[in-house]
Amino acid sequence: MMNHIEKLIEGFRRFRNNNYTQNHALFERLAKQGQSPKTIVVGCCDSRVDPAIVTDCDPGDLFIIRNVANLVPPYETSGTYHGTSAALEFGVRHLQVENIIVLGHCQCGGIRALMSQTPGVESQDGFISSWMKVASHARNRVLSRKHEESLEKQSRACEQEAILVSLDNLLTFPWILERVAQKKLALHGWYFDMEEGDLLRYDPDSNRFEPLS
Amino acid sequence: MMNHIEKLIEGFRRFRNNNYTQNHALFERLAKQGQSPKTIVVGCCDSRVDPAIVTDCDPGDLFIIRNVANLVPPYETSGTYHGTSAALEFGVRHLQVENIIVLGHCQCGGIRALMSQTPGVESQDGFISSWMKVASHARNRVLSRKHEESLEKQSRACEQEAILVSLDNLLTFPWILERVAQKKLALHGWYFDMEEGDLLRYDPDSNRFEPLS
Amino acid sequence: MMNHIEKLIEGFRRFRNNNYTQNHALFERLAKQGQSPKTIVVGCCDSRVDPAIVTDCDPGDLFIIRNVANLVPPYETSGTYHGTSAALEFGVRHLQVENIIVLGHCQCGGIRALMSQTPGVESQDGFISSWMKVASHARNRVLSRKHEESLEKQSRACEQEAILVSLDNLLTFPWILERVAQKKLALHGWYFDMEEGDLLRYDPDSNRFEPLS
Amino acid sequence: MMNHIEKLIEGFRRFRNNNYTQNHALFERLAKQGQSPKTIVVGCCDSRVDPAIVTDCDPGDLFIIRNVANLVPPYETSGTYHGTSAALEFGVRHLQVENIIVLGHCQCGGIRALMSQTPGVESQDGFISSWMKVASHARNRVLSRKHEESLEKQSRACEQEAILVSLDNLLTFPWILERVAQKKLALHGWYFDMEEGDLLRYDPDSNRFEPLS
Repeated sequence: MMNHIEKLIEGFRRFRNNNYTQNHALFERLAKQGQSPKTIVVGCCDSRVDPAIVTDCDPGDLFIIRNVANLVPPYETSGTYHGTSAALEFGVRHLQVENIIVLGHCQCGGIRALMSQTPGVESQDGFISSWMKVASHARNRVLSRKHEESLEKQSRACEQEAILVSLDNLLTFPWILERVAQKKLALHGWYFDMEEGDLLRYDPDSNRFEPLS
Repeated sequence: MMNHIEKLIEGFRRFRNNNYTQNHALFERLAKQGQSPKTIVVGCCDSRVDPAIVTDCDPGDLFIIRNVANLVPPYETSGTYHGTSAALEFGVRHLQVENIIVLGHCQCGGIRALMSQTPGVESQDGFISSWMKVASHARNRVLSRKHEESLEKQSRACEQEAILVSLDNLLTFPWILERVAQKKLALHGWYFDMEEGDLLRYDPDSNRFEPLS
Repeated sequence: MMNHIEKLIEGFRRFRNNNYTQNHALFERLAKQGQSPKTIVVGCCDSRVDPAIVTDCDPGDLFIIRNVANLVPPYETSGTYHGTSAALEFGVRHLQVENIIVLGHCQCGGIRALMSQTPGVESQDGFISSWMKVASHARNRVLSRKHEESLEKQSRACEQEAILVSLDNLLTFPWILERVAQKKLALHGWYFDMEEGDLLRYDPDSNRFEPLS
Repeated sequence: MMNHIEKLIEGFRRFRNNNYTQNHALFERLAKQGQSPKTIVVGCCDSRVDPAIVTDCDPGDLFIIRNVANLVPPYETSGTYHGTSAALEFGVRHLQVENIIVLGHCQCGGIRALMSQTPGVESQDGFISSWMKVASHARNRVLSRKHEESLEKQSRACEQEAILVSLDNLLTFPWILERVAQKKLALHGWYFDMEEGDLLRYDPDSNRFEPLS
């Protein structure tokens, strides 16, 4: 039986023989001229939601940040290593992308952990619970409105609210706010519903996530 | 002319009609039973190096963290939001993956920025230069040995050294070290050479990155 | 019976009658013109491994730093007293040495203490366990690879890995990195095996400690 | 012409053929049974003053700490790495030595730097000037009494006063004070005058450094 690492190596051989060979001219140009993606995607680490696959895009199209629950923390210059902020800075200021998509999805384990937490009880998950605090506004909004609903429904609502929190947080970065104000950069909230195979977009006018079709 | 967002939406429609439909049973099972990936990939945000595409893997196979230069910072409990550490914790302690692959690649913009920095001159890139400090040992090793080589050669060497720094840093997380020692978790350093379409693996015995074949 | 202090005084009289008298011109010149050693040795306090004796060198040859486990901590400007860093600064910037040798040895008590520590159990040895954290990367590497080997084998491996950590840390000092890059200063990792009476040198090409002969 | 590293390797071969071979039984016993030195020496890094050579002692006799100007900083538990304190802890609490000798010497570069500093002028030597603050009491005493004497005379006075400061600081370590009070541990201040080939000892009764003979 093939172990998982061997399977990935087999996969690389297929990639090399098919995708890489077919796109050889594109890879060559991308290697020579460097990348110039037009869009940043902030996606989740979840193994079921690969942004490049879900949008069937080409090499060079998407600059992709992936963290637990596709969160953008607020701008803050103290502390030490800010991985997501560094990636946003690289994409916005160096690559000068024109779009940032926060791509949420259903059944997010990080959001579920956040909604399951008993307030006041210190979680055992040091890094996760600390990281998920980025979305605490989203959690509070859901608890205030849907306190009696099931954990499933609360979590789905929180997954979408958390996208809005991240869109808000994006605007706390001065060089993002400036470009959005000048219409050089647009922010988008998307939500992949893997059960239905549907993609929803946040519509600021209706204040809802609406299906594409 | 189609703008970039419309192109991504077109891409999603293709994904839905092809990939999603063909894998419908898999997506349904993954939605119902949750994800159980066997491997974490720490990859770069670079638009040319999508881990799931380069390994041609299936939905549910890879838990993917993507940050600038595919770095793992050392374990540290102070500070505020640790996105990469939270994602590692989720993948290792909750999903119980069996492998962590640090996937570097050639022509990494983050590493290039690190190698181009004039020592002692404060960079304008607040978050990027702070984040790239994770790889400062790698930079130092390269400068000490290859001071007279071109920036291209230095950067390529640093891309590979930085993978080793991240492998070291992974071991600073107590719950990673414990599992590695018990042989429940294996750490891998991989390097994708997009110019050659080659995948190199770090071999601890030879202390070199060796091509797959 | 002669106590230990009297024995040392006896030793000084021998030194004065033999070594000092024979090298009188050298001592006189060194006193008048000052020292100009070409090499720093970072050695252990261990009573069995005296760097000047093991290399049978002359007065004025070696600028010798000795601390527990011959460690070099990373460059850091906060905190208060940095004895090893101050000594490196004196040797490198004032005396302008051309070599730094990190001289490890077998059966190092500090390394043994580090490898014996139960993770998560706070040690009673405040200063020692805090100091030995300099070598935690070395410990982690050994535990990840040799978890099932005896404490003796693990300690020996850690003694050698710790030398590599110190070599890395030397490069975090900007005025060391600069001189190494310019080939004005060379760094060496040596290991004295007192059981065999052998001296091993780290060879970066083979990534191994190789015997001199 | 032989370079300096080759010269040290030659020296090791001589050591191996002479000293190591002659003391083979002793080295073997020390390797098997571990070290049990009776004395700690806090010496200077200075290349002209090797404690083991100046006292012509045997392998295993002296546990030797060497830093700039043979200083003992006061006991303090904050900060990060305390190399000298860790070494004292190892020698006193683990090896249970019976003596600590602070071994100063004439023409100490660290003391000279301290006495040359213009008060209020920030030194360029970050680590050295910070480290030498350990001896600031010694400097102040000398300046208050010998303000008009030459830098040479001031420095020599300060070299001896600094030994007394270190003896004071040794007593700030609770496990040293306790052992000294119980007469299990004795503290000594020695001063090597390399110009005269003389060794002076501090005599608490006369409050002077007196020659051995």
